[in-house]
Parts: sequence; structure tokens; C-alpha cells
Amino acid sequence: MEVVNVELGARRYPIYVGAGCLRELGTKLAETRCGAGVAVVTNSTVADLYLDRALASLRDAAFEPIAIQIPDGEEHKNLAWLAFVYDKLIDAGVERSGAVIALGGGVVGDLAGFAAATYLRGIPCVQVPTTLLAQVDSAIGGKTGINHVAGKNLIGAFAQPRFVLADVETLRTLPRRELIAGLAEVVKYGIILDPGLFALIENQLSAVQHLERDLLARIVRMCCTLKALVVGEDETESGYRAVLNFGHTIAHGLESLTEYKQYLHGEAVAIGMVAAARISRRLGFCPDADYQRIRKLLERCGLPTEVPADLRGEPLALALRSDKKARGGLINFVCLEAIGKTRFERLTCDEIVKHL
Amino acid sequence: MEVVNVELGARRYPIYVGAGCLRELGTKLAETRCGAGVAVVTNSTVADLYLDRALASLRDAAFEPIAIQIPDGEEHKNLAWLAFVYDKLIDAGVERSGAVIALGGGVVGDLAGFAAATYLRGIPCVQVPTTLLAQVDSAIGGKTGINHVAGKNLIGAFAQPRFVLADVETLRTLPRRELIAGLAEVVKYGIILDPGLFALIENQLSAVQHLERDLLARIVRMCCTLKALVVGEDETESGYRAVLNFGHTIAHGLESLTEYKQYLHGEAVAIGMVAAARISRRLGFCPDADYQRIRKLLERCGLPTEVPADLRGEPLALALRSDKKARGGLINFVCLEAIGKTRFERLTCDEIVKHL
Repeated sequence: MEVVNVELGARRYPIYVGAGCLRELGTKLAETRCGAGVAVVTNSTVADLYLDRALASLRDAAFEPIAIQIPDGEEHKNLAWLAFVYDKLIDAGVERSGAVIALGGGVVGDLAGFAAATYLRGIPCVQVPTTLLAQVDSAIGGKTGINHVAGKNLIGAFAQPRFVLADVETLRTLPRRELIAGLAEVVKYGIILDPGLFALIENQLSAVQHLERDLLARIVRMCCTLKALVVGEDETESGYRAVLNFGHTIAHGLESLTEYKQYLHGEAVAIGMVAAARISRRLGFCPDADYQRIRKLLERCGLPTEVPADLRGEPLALALRSDKKARGGLINFVCLEAIGKTRFERLTCDEIVKHL
Repeated sequence: MEVVNVELGARRYPIYVGAGCLRELGTKLAETRCGAGVAVVTNSTVADLYLDRALASLRDAAFEPIAIQIPDGEEHKNLAWLAFVYDKLIDAGVERSGAVIALGGGVVGDLAGFAAATYLRGIPCVQVPTTLLAQVDSAIGGKTGINHVAGKNLIGAFAQPRFVLADVETLRTLPRRELIAGLAEVVKYGIILDPGLFALIENQLSAVQHLERDLLARIVRMCCTLKALVVGEDETESGYRAVLNFGHTIAHGLESLTEYKQYLHGEAVAIGMVAAARISRRLGFCPDADYQRIRKLLERCGLPTEVPADLRGEPLALALRSDKKARGGLINFVCLEAIGKTRFERLTCDEIVKHL
């Protein structure tokens, strides 16, 4: 088990990455000196696979955990299920000295993290991500929240966890399509921040896809280190952190247009990254060779890379206009100068869709 | 208009206190350089009295405000009305660069403050308290939240406003009973932190009750200064800030037992403070003379000072046991050594009710 630290002064916290480290959950929680009454929030799918192991580890460390199960799926990341979690926390009498442990993917992490951030005005939260996407991205950095019918993550809070425990063994039970979708975010870190990571995926893609244990742990650790650096620089996305949104403007537009039914998040991000690289190339920032490497690697991963013809132009422009990050009609778009080098450009929605 | 600063490093903010300063709302908001799209959250009663004035001040400063009205009353400080506020903010397209302005008493301040803290993961909030209780207490310090059927303020967040604007002229339209209830919190500051303030109320009670303008502004300013000092020391109530809970343990118990129908918050606090002073006397910490002065001043204010016979003993003990601040069955009870001097004691619920 290795440790990556997110440097945020008084809110500094460790990310533990390893194969099989879920069994250390209780020991690590005990180190935070939190009270015995804790709650594990998870979904039905993850519960079948890992809840017993998590509860056993907590009990071995003298905790008295309760389990709170929500249904599996993004459509449950809403106010109604948040209220359900509040009710269970209150019923169980979880105190301020307790903790909420989010065991699952991004939906569980976001919803449980927001519940922890707002129950009794905030109690400690621990993230135990079980998907690749959550391990390299959503579990780190303190973004928590729920969706609104009008858009994703419109309600939420920045609240950093006490620690993150990423057990790469849990990725073995991840559906193939979700693993591949998670790879899109891994490739993103390479594109925006680390040409070495990008080259590593290019060279070792087959081993990654075969879940080679040490390689997986190494890659997750590299991604966590990169995300920790960005979050340490800019916790609440007042500036630099927005670099992580590379490919995400168009991804969010596509997800919204297809009502979150057609693409997994990582799949939409793959399309969005190729589009962002292409826009960067058309604007004269990014060499064609870098664009081609990006497109090819994502294709080799098995990810989609093109905006479907029926969504181009006006439909996508319409979706972009309601982006919650838009300010005065302009979007702070993350462009590429090369693999490993980004630049921000203020673009209108029309400028973005025109260059697709 | 005078200024008291809450010293919280990067989250430092001013409290403006004055007679008639509501007309400065727009100017002061413009100084924070927030965007034009802002929302004023208020209730139906306050809207009739002050909404037009607030909107006019904002429009004069080139803002484009929308108004969001919730019904008047503590029973509406819940998840359903919070969702209503989210919907209105989303419908109006209020952006991260915008702001939520809470115009009203504690209910509006808490609910609007929590909405601001969690809408788009947090947008700026401004508190414009229009009750004495809100001006001296609830609008300052960043405690926001909503009630749950199981208890008050069980869901919320610490989120500091950008500024607080307390116009003491708005107290002229406050129902007499609410004004008197607010006085309980004013007296509290005297008891726990400032013998001079306590003596001032003793000597000038009649002038206060007649809403003598300069005196009122002076007293509100003194209270704000005291609260700002405490919050500056301990923003998230990890220790010292709990001194502000003097009288509140029993008050919350009484409010809960009577289902928030019999007492205004300040009335319950008055009873709780007399009880806490009496417990302190019985434990040998507090001289009888100080206890008597406290009881007499609160009586002269027109506040209740005794726990009704039918609630003493077991009913109250039961209510205290579910206090959200209880840890392992013990309550961190604020005792008195003298007017102006407190001490914390860990007491069981039975010890508290035994000494009543």
C-alpha cells in the first residue's frame, strides 16, 4: 500500500493505493480517532461484492458500523435519496464524532460525500472508491453533490474526505465497459499533465486491460498524484483546477443531450477530448501529430471518439449554453498546445461547435 | 453606519450596523464585485415590508435581482422549501458569480444561507437580518441549515456570508414578542462575555424597549463585536464557540418537548439561562448575587424564567438525551462562574435536570 498526500494545509489528507487494501479500512479509520458510530453508504451492486469485507474490517477495529444502501445508478444521485441517507444517519444516531464511508463509484462517493458534508453541518467522510473512474478522479478533491432535473451536480459542496482508500483489486469485478470508460480519465491526466503517463498507457495498454496488478496500482497512484497536485493548487476551482475539465465541456453537452443514457461519463469524455484536441489544432495551438496520438490511443482503448452526426451543430450548441460553468455566454475552454501542455481560451458555444 | 469585522483570514467579512442602512445594500454588494444575476430570498411577511426597498437598492446599483419568497415560519425551514429555492435559482439561471441575499429573520437566513452554500457547490451569500435575534446572532458566524422532522438544524453547513447588513430601523416593525425574545440573546452576550453590556441593559432597559435608535444600534454593534470575536476564534465550533450555547441546552430541550409551538427561541433561551445559572450556583461555581441579577433582568425584560413543572425531570432528561451535541451521553454544559465568566462542565442529562 502506498500513500499520496493531498496538500491542503489543515485539510491535508492521504490517498492509500494498493492491491487488497480494503482490509485496512478499519485500521486507517481508527488512526483518524473518530467515534465508533459510523455509516457505510454503498449501492446494491457493490454491497453484494464488498460490503461484508468493509464491515468486517471496521468491526475488527472496534467500530460499530451501519450500512446504508442506495440503488445503483446515476438517476438515484438526487435529493430524494439524499434525504433517505439523512434519515438513516439520524435513525442510527450517528454523531458528529462519527464518519460516513462512501464505498462505491462516483454516484455513491458524490452523494455520500455531500450527505457527510451537510449532516450535522458536516461530519468526517472517507472515500473508498471501487471503480477506476472514482479511484483516479471523483473520490479525490472534495467535489460532492447531487443532480437536479435541470442538470448534473447543480447542488453540492466542496468537502475534503479524511482519507481515500483505493483498492485496485476491486477493479477486477468492474464491468469491462466501465473499466474502459475509466481509462478515458487516466488518458486525460497524461494528455493534460504528464506525457510520460500517456506514453506508458500507449506502451502497456494490453497489460492495463488485463488488469496487471502492479501496473494498475502504479497508474492509479500516478493519476492520484497528479490530481492531488492540481487540487492542492486550487481547491475550489477558482482557476487552475479547471484544467481537469479538459474534454468535459463537450462531454457534459453530449451526456445532457442523450439524457445520460447513451454514454458512460468516460466515453463522453473520450469524445470530448478528441474534439477539444481537434479544436486546438484548428485554432493553431496543437500540432496534428499530438492530435493523432490522442485519437489513436483512445480508439485502441475501445472508446468512442466522434460526436455523432445528429448531435453536431445546433443541438450541441444549445446544450453548451446551459453549462453551469458558462459566464456571460463564454466558456473557459481547455485547449491543448501539446500532450502535457494546456491553455485556457474563452470561447463562445458557437465557436466550439463550429470547429468540431 | 458602523463596521464590525469578523476576522477569518481569507473568509474575513464586515458586518454593517446602522439605522436605515438597508438602502446601502446595492452599493455594498457592488463592492464585492459579484455578477448582476442575484436572488433575494425572503418570506411573505418581510416581503410586504422591505422587499421593494431591497430590490430598488439592488437595481440602483445595476443588479438584476429576482425575489424568492418562502412562507413565514420555522416549520418551513425544511428540505421541501430548500428544494423550492434551488428550483427558483436554477430557473432564473443564477450563476456562480451571482449571490443569494437573505432578507429576513433566522429561518430565512439559515435556509437561504444553506441554499447559497450548496447551489453550484456554493455561491456568495449576504445576510440582511431584520429581527433582533438574527441581527445579534443567527446572521453572523456562518451556521446555515434546515430542520429535519427528527430535530432542528440537523442538516446544514458552515458557510460564511460575504457581509452582513443589519438595519436597526427594521426592528420597528418587529412584533413586540419577537423583540423581547431577541433581547434574551442580547442579555446572553452580557452574561457570558461582557458585564458592561449586561449593566447597560439593566440601566437602559426602558430605552431599549422603546427602540431608542442610537442605543439600539450601539447594542447590536456590541453584540456583533462579541459574536465576531468568538467566531473568529473558533469558526466551526470545535471548542470555544460552544460558549454561545449558554442556556441553549435546556432551551433546545424545552423547544423540542413543546414541539416549537409554546416558546419563541429567545424565550426558551431565557429559561435555559436562568436554569444554567441556577445549576452553576448549585454546583458551587456561581455566586447567588449573580444568579439573582440574571433572573431579575430577564424577568424585567418580560421573558419567562422557569421550566414549567410538567416538563421538569424525566421529560426534559429524555429531550436532552437526543441533543445533537451530546457525545457518549455527556453534554458539554456551559456553566457560569460570574456574570462575564463561563466554564465548561461535562454533565449527564440526569445531572442537569436534577439541579433544576
